[in-house]
Amino acid sequence: MSLTVINATIDGERMRMRVEDGTIAKIGPRIRPRDGDEVIDANGMAIVPGLVNGHTHAAMTLFRGHGDDLPLMRWLQEVIWPVEARLEDEDVYWGTRLACLEMIRTGTVRFWDMYWHPSATARAVEDAGIRATLAGPLFDLGDAAGDDGMPQMAERGLEEIGEPRELVAPALGPHAIYTVSEGGLRWIAEASAERDIPIHIHLSETEEEVVRCVADHGVRPAEYLDRLGVLGPRTVLAHGVWLDESELALIGERGATVVTNPVANLKLAVGRVFPYRATRRHGIPIGLGTNGAGSNNSLDLLQDVKILALLQKHETHDPSTLPAADAWRIVTGQAAPLLGGSERIEEGQPADFLLVRSDTPELGVGDFTAALIYAASGAVIDTTVVNGRVLMSGGVVEGADEVIAKARERCVRLGLD
Amino acid sequence: MSLTVINATIDGERMRMRVEDGTIAKIGPRIRPRDGDEVIDANGMAIVPGLVNGHTHAAMTLFRGHGDDLPLMRWLQEVIWPVEARLEDEDVYWGTRLACLEMIRTGTVRFWDMYWHPSATARAVEDAGIRATLAGPLFDLGDAAGDDGMPQMAERGLEEIGEPRELVAPALGPHAIYTVSEGGLRWIAEASAERDIPIHIHLSETEEEVVRCVADHGVRPAEYLDRLGVLGPRTVLAHGVWLDESELALIGERGATVVTNPVANLKLAVGRVFPYRATRRHGIPIGLGTNGAGSNNSLDLLQDVKILALLQKHETHDPSTLPAADAWRIVTGQAAPLLGGSERIEEGQPADFLLVRSDTPELGVGDFTAALIYAASGAVIDTTVVNGRVLMSGGVVEGADEVIAKARERCVRLGLD
Repeated sequence: MSLTVINATIDGERMRMRVEDGTIAKIGPRIRPRDGDEVIDANGMAIVPGLVNGHTHAAMTLFRGHGDDLPLMRWLQEVIWPVEARLEDEDVYWGTRLACLEMIRTGTVRFWDMYWHPSATARAVEDAGIRATLAGPLFDLGDAAGDDGMPQMAERGLEEIGEPRELVAPALGPHAIYTVSEGGLRWIAEASAERDIPIHIHLSETEEEVVRCVADHGVRPAEYLDRLGVLGPRTVLAHGVWLDESELALIGERGATVVTNPVANLKLAVGRVFPYRATRRHGIPIGLGTNGAGSNNSLDLLQDVKILALLQKHETHDPSTLPAADAWRIVTGQAAPLLGGSERIEEGQPADFLLVRSDTPELGVGDFTAALIYAASGAVIDTTVVNGRVLMSGGVVEGADEVIAKARERCVRLGLD
Repeated sequence: MSLTVINATIDGERMRMRVEDGTIAKIGPRIRPRDGDEVIDANGMAIVPGLVNGHTHAAMTLFRGHGDDLPLMRWLQEVIWPVEARLEDEDVYWGTRLACLEMIRTGTVRFWDMYWHPSATARAVEDAGIRATLAGPLFDLGDAAGDDGMPQMAERGLEEIGEPRELVAPALGPHAIYTVSEGGLRWIAEASAERDIPIHIHLSETEEEVVRCVADHGVRPAEYLDRLGVLGPRTVLAHGVWLDESELALIGERGATVVTNPVANLKLAVGRVFPYRATRRHGIPIGLGTNGAGSNNSLDLLQDVKILALLQKHETHDPSTLPAADAWRIVTGQAAPLLGGSERIEEGQPADFLLVRSDTPELGVGDFTAALIYAASGAVIDTTVVNGRVLMSGGVVEGADEVIAKARERCVRLGLD
């Protein structure tokens, strides 16, 4: 499968690009399509790298618009948990398909997920054609523990997801330090190191988590994780809102990645803003996540990256904080190589890219990167290509109607519509 | 000119709607189009009221993407003011057309503007077909004062805009308390009362403004305005970030409207969040504005209303603050009758409405109002109708390409592209 993009703009220059076997084979002003190539006329459009969602729970699209504006614990106890207990594979499959549809439409080419029934998630991701690193949530404390110990639960999750392949990679997903035991976390750290599998964990989302960690373990959350061997270059820490300076120094030394989720943090009112400047000062790779659609409620990263930048300007009382070029590096995953979005529009790179309509009112004048960050939404994306395959063209994703209809059916089944 | 919308959903029910002479003539399940009616098939779409932008500087779309991430005074002094000094009517005309294009695409049917060359703005608004209340900015302190006194300057501005008519209404636009003299403000208050013309003024955007007002006048900004007769039911106060409890009580008593601009306030890092809860407690009508595209940089109100709601949840540490239904009332102008957006989808109301694609991934499941506020962007708008005229259909605005091309030409002329 190969394709040639003609009449495109790359970094402001008129270029053609040829894609072969999922890879950017050639970029230049005078490339000719070969026989059998799909040809995309990108007139008025710019080629940019795809976006990377560093933390979400994709199937939670099904819960979107249910229990909004409730305090966190009421939302979880009254709305989310009772429904999650009834989830079947097909619910997760269609919820994830709905999420993938929205992500493809808004330019996301890769996401990091943590959710129940990960085999259904994997199937949905492959059918949708985008890339994901998947983890089943691992708990071994409290009600959710059941009879399994951590090794059995984790092995079952990894088995469900399967071996790393073109579009899907597995991760270990210990839910959080307050839901996984010390022994469980130690086992996960060892398994991650032995098998070279990333760890994806929620950390320091709320102040309560920090207070409890200090009370229970005598150290703050990042220090606790480090003591158990969990903090390393294969680890993705989602949220990190309440991390302090010494924790950030430690994370920087260990090489772990932090993924901030500004919209969900605001919506759930966790009470603090992600310490971006300090995180950057310590050289920590930074990604951006939407969190699940139940607490955002969008998966449109171009909206979220604007909010990330705005919030940091506000918090630091300085409009020059987190300028557009840095925000663009974050939303494309280029500021966090572990997330897998370090691709650039260069020969030899994976063919994960977007065609952006540069002749819309929002993008037609002024600096292009600033326009993408501050003026655009996902609606400016015309074409989404992942692994050399065109998943959206002219704003149209094939089969979208079926996905929406099926997701609605699952909502009805779950008593959500 | 009349039209009939068929297969639409209104408040969850399948309905038809007939529009005659710019007014909603009839709503019901079995209305038949009459001969000569334009017929709109709204299958899979919901009819909702249009959105109201309570504060902007429309022509500043030309400055979008220039000087982003600069501190406020450097942005004004190095980027904006030198260019504004060179603005001609045609610049303002095409900048405003570009703004109107973006507003129509994202569902705004009415806006409140304050900008130079208001006759050009009025012409652009009428050519674009949306509604606006326009004011030329009035200054009589500092360099901008020139030789005119306030009466001459204000009369000239009103003359440029002309008498109130179908789409355009004039307002008096004293720029701010630190750029207009006491005498000037008194004259404006009297002229507003005598001629029943609204006043549109920036108030309490920065802390510095408050500090200077107290130093110069011995009272805080709202008290100062009240002393000069400016605070009344015809007055729109833009920003209001730094208003305190006693000022809000006074504004509530006087019946003035406050328009919050959360995105611009964050982007320019004014240092505080609009006191929404107290404003509401004092019964003050509340509107939402984007501010100029130069400091936002979008005019998409569905993005801004989400940020408004998120920010208030964060600020109050309470996810139940500013729930979706209240946010919807604000973004449609229903929470601020003076802004002119109190229209509902009812017989006899002006035919200013939107068709929203309710079968998109973002809006397909869950509570519809919550989805509009938290999950949507302007991209969900399919059709925009103002005064009974279809300005966008199927996402397409006629003549959009010309508007973008002409706006670009003006940017080049101004040395901005």
